[in-house]
Amino acid sequence: MTAISFEDLQRRIAGILRRAGMNDTQSEALSGIIAAGERDGCKSHGIYRIEGVLRTLKAGKVNGRAEPVLAEDDGRGVIRVNAGHGFSTPAFELGLPLLVARTRELGLAAMVVNDCTHFSALWPEVEAVAEHGLAALVMCPSYASVAPAGGTAALLGTNPLAFGWPRSGQPPYAFDFATSVAARGELELKRRAGEPLPQGWAIDVNGQPTTDPDAGLAGAMLPFGGHKGSAIGTMIELLAGIMIGDLTSPEVLEQLGTTALAPHHGELIIALSPEAFVKGRPGDPFARAERLFDAIIGQGARLPSARRRAARELAERDGISLTAAELAELERMQRHGLDAVN
Amino acid sequence: MTAISFEDLQRRIAGILRRAGMNDTQSEALSGIIAAGERDGCKSHGIYRIEGVLRTLKAGKVNGRAEPVLAEDDGRGVIRVNAGHGFSTPAFELGLPLLVARTRELGLAAMVVNDCTHFSALWPEVEAVAEHGLAALVMCPSYASVAPAGGTAALLGTNPLAFGWPRSGQPPYAFDFATSVAARGELELKRRAGEPLPQGWAIDVNGQPTTDPDAGLAGAMLPFGGHKGSAIGTMIELLAGIMIGDLTSPEVLEQLGTTALAPHHGELIIALSPEAFVKGRPGDPFARAERLFDAIIGQGARLPSARRRAARELAERDGISLTAAELAELERMQRHGLDAVN
Repeated sequence: MTAISFEDLQRRIAGILRRAGMNDTQSEALSGIIAAGERDGCKSHGIYRIEGVLRTLKAGKVNGRAEPVLAEDDGRGVIRVNAGHGFSTPAFELGLPLLVARTRELGLAAMVVNDCTHFSALWPEVEAVAEHGLAALVMCPSYASVAPAGGTAALLGTNPLAFGWPRSGQPPYAFDFATSVAARGELELKRRAGEPLPQGWAIDVNGQPTTDPDAGLAGAMLPFGGHKGSAIGTMIELLAGIMIGDLTSPEVLEQLGTTALAPHHGELIIALSPEAFVKGRPGDPFARAERLFDAIIGQGARLPSARRRAARELAERDGISLTAAELAELERMQRHGLDAVN
Repeated sequence: MTAISFEDLQRRIAGILRRAGMNDTQSEALSGIIAAGERDGCKSHGIYRIEGVLRTLKAGKVNGRAEPVLAEDDGRGVIRVNAGHGFSTPAFELGLPLLVARTRELGLAAMVVNDCTHFSALWPEVEAVAEHGLAALVMCPSYASVAPAGGTAALLGTNPLAFGWPRSGQPPYAFDFATSVAARGELELKRRAGEPLPQGWAIDVNGQPTTDPDAGLAGAMLPFGGHKGSAIGTMIELLAGIMIGDLTSPEVLEQLGTTALAPHHGELIIALSPEAFVKGRPGDPFARAERLFDAIIGQGARLPSARRRAARELAERDGISLTAAELAELERMQRHGLDAVN
């Protein structure tokens, strides 16, 4: 293992993305979010993702030279950013200052990102909002791969839901999870390991429960928590697909024709100002939240961001550890650009 | 069975509540919501709830003569209503017109209800917002009865989450569920039936999994969907307890000292205008939502509001069916007022 700094890793990733034809706006934002995934021990959203970015670029399904555009400000609570068929991250970063200002002014506000390609986790975005002392709720569709509860075929996406709450002097409380019971990558890992799927993860092409990874991957995944998770997944299609005038998960799959490339859709970010909401009421909301977190931890339970946080502290102290194979892969991608992928 | 009209049922319930000392504001709002529960086949939130209302009144834990107060309008996105230690429903009804107007103006807005006693389902509130063509997200704490995932004791409430989406010419799409895997009443029913609890419903006082209803009722319920449901339950404590300057579920239990009376806390309602969010984008969001609902139903899956809706249609056609015992109980409560309960 070799330990490198966050800055060094981001520079290497940005170099790969520029070599593949991306402009500064796209490559800076993406390299930051990929390096953050690696730093936080989220290997599934770390350098592993670069290949998917390159494949999506090579397939012409994303504009690597897009400059996101902030809509003219009408002074209302909805901030609009058009990603210009580039990646979601630069669009989010463009809109963030106005979202923060408008949330402070009105008590709550929302950012709509349209026409973006999305491959990243949502926790970096709830964290970015929370660093301004605001709570955030973020959601987006993906592509049809999850059957509604009681249904027989893929319709909903894995539709992630993320939430963040600001904490003083430390990373925010943040959760970020798929509304499917398992991620597609977890089914893939079971398949490679030759292990059966746990009950309740998937159905086959005939809509029947299956523990066979191949049958599950060909069929559909199931929502977490039965009809409750299914309802939340449906809500995400409504709010972060239909309501914002962007694609739903079945429409994404229809347009893209594959789940092997990063999906193209929109994203919804809702920000809330605890200071505005608590106005005139007793008690400091941030201090009270710490007492709630202490009570959870005091039971031996873990806060949802705990594992990420521990990995981050380690990486900040000792650097980000990469294997020789990972470093070689980064060099290979740097050398070959888009030819590094099929 | 005797069938009576919605209006007749509401009048009878309002009479009972007035006889027990409640003013018109409280008794009108409560009788409407209880009659709606009965009409929609939600027996757990129908006339069964009257006894709990009377007990909470008799214990002096709610002000049956409260007049909710709308805070002076500062033109921002957060509407505030103080329930004056009365029930939540009249406070919600007082604030609704301003919430609707502000949401149309800003694109999104929120209503905070403080200092209310809460015993009702949340779907009537998401439906009331959705009837104005707006989407709604509603949540509130309850009392500590659910352990966080990985924890050992009751801390979170059953913390319901509800969502509504407007539909043209028919009741809104609406879901409303506890973030515990089962409702406390379901454990109670298992206990009475002498049946074991399903795995994963509850832990005992030592924090160990149990299928014994008595042990589970003495211990803690578990969140739905493992750590995901636990995270959502925690989010509800943060947003609809702490952020709005009202009680969390452990604080409610501490103040009330029992789960036999209706809990006292706050409530958060977030309303979103699809017309504002979709502005400048192609496609009618309401027509697109219908296509999504059709695709769900086309798989043989059910929309979350389907059962309630079928019961409502039947009640609107044939009246609300009550048993002789239920009618006798209504008469007994009307005759005896607060003496009808312990």
